[in-house]
Amino acid sequence: MTKEKIGFYRLLLENELFECVIPFWENHSIDEKNGGYYNCLDRDGSVYDTRKHIWLQGRQAWMFSKLFESDQKSQWLEIAYEGVKFLTNNAVREDGRVYFSLTEDGRPIYMQRKIFSECFYVMALAGYANASGESKYQKMAELQLAKIWDWSEDLTKVGRPVYEGEIAAQSLAIPMILLNLIEEVTHGDYSRYNAEVDRCIDRILLHVDRQRQVVFETVTPDGGYINNSDGRVLNPGHAIEAGWFLQNWAQKKQDAELAETAAKMVRWSYSKGWDKEYGGIFYFLDYEGYSPLQLEWDMKLWWPHCEAMVAHLQNVKLFGLKEDWDSFTEVTDYSFTHFSDKVFGEWYGYTNRRGEITHRFKGGPYKGCFHVPRALFYCWQMLGELEKTV
Amino acid sequence: MTKEKIGFYRLLLENELFECVIPFWENHSIDEKNGGYYNCLDRDGSVYDTRKHIWLQGRQAWMFSKLFESDQKSQWLEIAYEGVKFLTNNAVREDGRVYFSLTEDGRPIYMQRKIFSECFYVMALAGYANASGESKYQKMAELQLAKIWDWSEDLTKVGRPVYEGEIAAQSLAIPMILLNLIEEVTHGDYSRYNAEVDRCIDRILLHVDRQRQVVFETVTPDGGYINNSDGRVLNPGHAIEAGWFLQNWAQKKQDAELAETAAKMVRWSYSKGWDKEYGGIFYFLDYEGYSPLQLEWDMKLWWPHCEAMVAHLQNVKLFGLKEDWDSFTEVTDYSFTHFSDKVFGEWYGYTNRRGEITHRFKGGPYKGCFHVPRALFYCWQMLGELEKTV
Repeated sequence: MTKEKIGFYRLLLENELFECVIPFWENHSIDEKNGGYYNCLDRDGSVYDTRKHIWLQGRQAWMFSKLFESDQKSQWLEIAYEGVKFLTNNAVREDGRVYFSLTEDGRPIYMQRKIFSECFYVMALAGYANASGESKYQKMAELQLAKIWDWSEDLTKVGRPVYEGEIAAQSLAIPMILLNLIEEVTHGDYSRYNAEVDRCIDRILLHVDRQRQVVFETVTPDGGYINNSDGRVLNPGHAIEAGWFLQNWAQKKQDAELAETAAKMVRWSYSKGWDKEYGGIFYFLDYEGYSPLQLEWDMKLWWPHCEAMVAHLQNVKLFGLKEDWDSFTEVTDYSFTHFSDKVFGEWYGYTNRRGEITHRFKGGPYKGCFHVPRALFYCWQMLGELEKTV
Repeated sequence: MTKEKIGFYRLLLENELFECVIPFWENHSIDEKNGGYYNCLDRDGSVYDTRKHIWLQGRQAWMFSKLFESDQKSQWLEIAYEGVKFLTNNAVREDGRVYFSLTEDGRPIYMQRKIFSECFYVMALAGYANASGESKYQKMAELQLAKIWDWSEDLTKVGRPVYEGEIAAQSLAIPMILLNLIEEVTHGDYSRYNAEVDRCIDRILLHVDRQRQVVFETVTPDGGYINNSDGRVLNPGHAIEAGWFLQNWAQKKQDAELAETAAKMVRWSYSKGWDKEYGGIFYFLDYEGYSPLQLEWDMKLWWPHCEAMVAHLQNVKLFGLKEDWDSFTEVTDYSFTHFSDKVFGEWYGYTNRRGEITHRFKGGPYKGCFHVPRALFYCWQMLGELEKTV
């Protein structure tokens, strides 16, 4: 972990972010006519499906807000605004529910019985409020977050039925995203969300099984192990992401024990998820070693690798261990070798177990301007700070 | 296509069905305590998840009814009855909606906003009515089919919302399964379902694009092409299955033109779906050559291969072409090489593009005692008939 090595990666990521990734979205995703972003983009950026998926609309608006915060290029704020405007005009139903997908001109196509579209809408509002300084978006973000909080406590409110034979269970995704949203909405002073923050942290920790050294996606409401295919599921990339979300809060709260736990979540999940034969992080595993039910379990997806880059580097910054640095370079090298596309920009999203590209598109219903630039952006910032200290 | 070759395959399939496949389900799936069948069975038949999935409960009850029809072994009728009893006692809500999954002791876990659980319930009832001669099950099957028919005309009745921006579309699966159910429920004389049969056939034919020589999964209500990722989807195995369902009706109706169309659906879809590099039938393709959105698109699943065995052999029987026979032997040889498990019985369900096993289980939420034994059973019968005529 020499200054030179750190500088090498800082430059690598800087070039990738600003020369290869951001221009792809600037050049290809903007819908000049209807507003918002095309998010189903083929390898070369051409639109192969005009539908607009709200997760990606919200995330892209957030990303460009974030970029503008660090470097005040007016076109970045404009791009963010295009997304926010399209969302506020089209994506939200009267009761505050947010659609999953819209036509290119903003008519609703589908709504999930989940709360994630709402969450990425809040991210967009909060990010844009912060970048633009327009307080009305801050207010909208807080009001929407309150609704999401309410729904998250009882998902029947978003239409999810409950059946008698269901095992009462809680999913890692919900406290994770809520914690992340509180971070985005508070921009620093989180005192008015103290109780909510603690509740999210407690709920995430229920998924951390210290004895088994794994993070389960689904547990009983008191953190118990569910011994069926759902309860045994490990999603290493997701657990790693939960780790760095939690680490942010451990740092805010200056809680050393929580910081240690968050670091372990990352290390355990990376070690368990890494494919020793072909490299890369498996998408899903079954804790007991059964075949996961997910057909795509052995594929290598771009986003777990992005999350691992951020999480390992955060550990390096905090703990200074060679082990964490080696993991950071391992997953970064893997990602640049397998996902990066120097010809047309952005990263591919999907490879088979061997690391061969299986899907040529750069954007789809679940991939857009988000995981790649977010990881490059955060890592680039952290490497810059590290460079100064080593 | 010599008598010897036909005899070789007849014997191969007969052994596979009665020595390797049926014993697997007889020995491992029966839940002596609660009734019904365990359907999440690992490679060796051990239960890795005790949940019971209704598609598979219905299909297994149907399969054992069918076996009993051809050879009156009392244990086969008993096994079928165990499934029918478990279903009628537990799977049906007061309004006739059928759950998707139950706990092992029959408490509801999940219900889809689709009609397929209901369909496989009807298959079980109709099959068992025919095998046992008990008319009350016949009556139940007909009443339930009437409900499904009603729901299929307006899926908002099973809770599927409609949004303004949705493209009006119809899916191949629904007329296919309805046509198949009418066949199962009528056992021959279908005169009281004449109008329904014609409507299903007409609706299936809307998916057959003669100019492009493909069968689309989703089209507009008048058969138009939808140029987005959903509209461009090809599912070759499903189109092949639709082909042989339709062929059954072309024969009943002695409609030569329909027979020719049904045969072409099979040949086109097989030719388009066959992986020229590694062999096997792709799960999904995009008609325009974009990457399908489905992550598992390039995997080889057992069931499209099962459907192709039946469909090609049916074409051989009707048209006597070498081309169809060669396709039958190609897909049968591929299946026996890649899916069959001589050690523990039954077939594996999932391989990657190269044909390497990715999932070791024999039964899961979508795989049970159905496609493999159904294909072996029908092909074994057809080969026996062919052997006599060549």
